[in-house]
Amino acid sequence: MVRRRRMVRNYDPGRPVPPEVVDRLLDHAVRAPSAGFAQGWGFLVLEAAEDRERFWSAATPGGGGRERWLAGMRRAPLIVVPHANRSAYLERYAEPDKGWADRSAERWPVPYWYVDTGFAALLMLLTAVDEGLGACFFGIPPQRLDAYRAAFGVPEEYQPIGAITVGYRAVDHRSPSLRRGRRPVTEVVRRGRWS
Amino acid sequence: MVRRRRMVRNYDPGRPVPPEVVDRLLDHAVRAPSAGFAQGWGFLVLEAAEDRERFWSAATPGGGGRERWLAGMRRAPLIVVPHANRSAYLERYAEPDKGWADRSAERWPVPYWYVDTGFAALLMLLTAVDEGLGACFFGIPPQRLDAYRAAFGVPEEYQPIGAITVGYRAVDHRSPSLRRGRRPVTEVVRRGRWS
Repeated sequence: MVRRRRMVRNYDPGRPVPPEVVDRLLDHAVRAPSAGFAQGWGFLVLEAAEDRERFWSAATPGGGGRERWLAGMRRAPLIVVPHANRSAYLERYAEPDKGWADRSAERWPVPYWYVDTGFAALLMLLTAVDEGLGACFFGIPPQRLDAYRAAFGVPEEYQPIGAITVGYRAVDHRSPSLRRGRRPVTEVVRRGRWS
Repeated sequence: MVRRRRMVRNYDPGRPVPPEVVDRLLDHAVRAPSAGFAQGWGFLVLEAAEDRERFWSAATPGGGGRERWLAGMRRAPLIVVPHANRSAYLERYAEPDKGWADRSAERWPVPYWYVDTGFAALLMLLTAVDEGLGACFFGIPPQRLDAYRAAFGVPEEYQPIGAITVGYRAVDHRSPSLRRGRRPVTEVVRRGRWS
């Protein structure tokens, strides 16, 4: 499943994702690990055509040029938007068993709210492969964030880390970025010492 | 594998991780998705006893109290430290096909260098389960970061997002954080609209 996964950017618009498969995707998402078991995440699930249309209008740039890949993406019968809630982490680590005296974000060398919500997103991508589906994780441009929040009533403390399209696969083009080639293990792994 | 995974904090010190299993862990790690296929990551692999000892001395607080869980962790025959390289992302998105005019980090609503390196970490955790091993992902405290870097010669641009212990499982205690309970899907999922 790890080896078969790749981002799929075109879907069969006539085949919705069965409800029990949607449930399994979400059930796996919440099994992601999280720092202090904070689970500071929230998922917006869009299936109705009008909800999906509202998403594409709000969260993506208007047509043309570089955005042609969105034509296939728009055929996806399911969109899941994973959100990270930083305040849930700051609260969690101010509890007695963690014992940080304040809720400062400075203490965090790594923003685990994004990492953990990313874990949940990856588990959905992998589960999609396991269910015979395709999926794609992509970013929401910063300049569309306000429009996205307004369209769906998403509060400030929940930040979308991107969005995931899911559906039965149709023929698509592989991302041109893949031409860069995968960096081999020998290039990215150091043993015993970095340098 | 998603359902069976949990953080394992004690290991059989007498059973090293076979080299081919270490290879499969790393091979899966580099199959993680990444924004723009930037693959801005690097992995430090520690197996020799003296390297692991150097890691524990540098990257964790000294004994006592809250740190008792480290006794079992120290028995792990393998430590992998995944690092995120932000500059690789800033460079990637300044390339012609992405076309951002500058290398500012401001454009990034989400620090995908951490998210993607987290993806690689989770693939190692899942692969460990698949191989009949236990693993644990944990943070390196910010105040130990300089000591960690100095101990292994890690350059500034590579930031460890935590570390992963891997080994054959021994009896351990589940994290007390799990008593918080898993947040049910119904609590973290919104459908059609957030509010």
